[in-house]
Amino acid sequence: MKAQDLRLYLVTDRLAAKGRDAKSVIAAALKGGVTMIQVREKNSSAREFMAFAETVKELAAPYGVPVIINDRVDVAVAVRADGVHLGQSDIPCEVARAMLGKESIIGLSVEKMAQIPEANSLSVDYIGVSPVFATPTKTDTAEPFGLAGLSQAVKLSGHPVVAIGGVNIETAPGILACGVDGLAVVSAIMGAGDPQVAASALKGLWENSNL
Amino acid sequence: MKAQDLRLYLVTDRLAAKGRDAKSVIAAALKGGVTMIQVREKNSSAREFMAFAETVKELAAPYGVPVIINDRVDVAVAVRADGVHLGQSDIPCEVARAMLGKESIIGLSVEKMAQIPEANSLSVDYIGVSPVFATPTKTDTAEPFGLAGLSQAVKLSGHPVVAIGGVNIETAPGILACGVDGLAVVSAIMGAGDPQVAASALKGLWENSNL
Repeated sequence: MKAQDLRLYLVTDRLAAKGRDAKSVIAAALKGGVTMIQVREKNSSAREFMAFAETVKELAAPYGVPVIINDRVDVAVAVRADGVHLGQSDIPCEVARAMLGKESIIGLSVEKMAQIPEANSLSVDYIGVSPVFATPTKTDTAEPFGLAGLSQAVKLSGHPVVAIGGVNIETAPGILACGVDGLAVVSAIMGAGDPQVAASALKGLWENSNL
Repeated sequence: MKAQDLRLYLVTDRLAAKGRDAKSVIAAALKGGVTMIQVREKNSSAREFMAFAETVKELAAPYGVPVIINDRVDVAVAVRADGVHLGQSDIPCEVARAMLGKESIIGLSVEKMAQIPEANSLSVDYIGVSPVFATPTKTDTAEPFGLAGLSQAVKLSGHPVVAIGGVNIETAPGILACGVDGLAVVSAIMGAGDPQVAASALKGLWENSNL
């Protein structure tokens, strides 16, 4: 397994930054203790995506925090990202692995319990169980797993599990109790009044836990 | 230079097929004499894009017609396409060349005369001069080149030139007279009442010319 620290996994969403400069929000989140960043851009050209990913890489480098790219394996290659996060409708994991090599981090979203056995057979480094709870950030997601479903997913998965969807300071303790390896957040940091404080509070939950 | 035949270059657009099955339209276009196909999908997931590209590859294989992918280099790798067509906001040509290898076809859209000298310095196999005329297919394009601009582009370019934007049976003779290497069409074939007849008529212009 790779030396990936999934504990506080930030998914960037420039719209969720509520008009603020996403760069400063991400800088604050890193200060607060984010351990991994996925750059997600849904309506950008490849060049815009690359430019933003390069900015995030520069911010994350001093912290040794890996930066991975949502969906576009070619953008990940172009910016020499640390990996990609793939959905069920994205490039197949095996193709991405061949393009990126074995040292890269590849994550896969799992939206149904039935997708976990297949994920176990794939060369991925973690799965993102999505969504745990209903969320306004993504509108195209499946039925939420809920905490009982998340616990079952953790038991079924042969890969580390990151929880995503409705993760915030209120829901995180219950999610941690399910045995996940990471908390993935979008709005809870990107949209927070003070992103550094928000990240630090979420990170602190790990330090207070016995995991 | 590669053994690419750019003379009748079809850009797929499923919407332009006017509700007909794009597969049957493309099959007819191939019968009519299309020499190259670019698969362009603007709102599809990578998996949908791959599935459609695989279908087009199967159709084109018996004709030996190359199939290239618009924008997504990762999709091109995933389906083992013959190459990619890139816009000015897509993955840089050098990165695409490194990902695809020297045997692949890489085309680049040029939307301003000033982009041609830069294109001359790049490892691309042709340029697409876009748009020649105003067109309803793409709404985000720059000022049309017109025939005088196209002639100048052909003179400036060190690469073969494909004309795109407003190319149809009426405009094609004037475009051929500018010395282009290829006619790229979307609606003139995808939206034609009889796509085979439309392709055959456009292809026939080449056979009647002295080029």
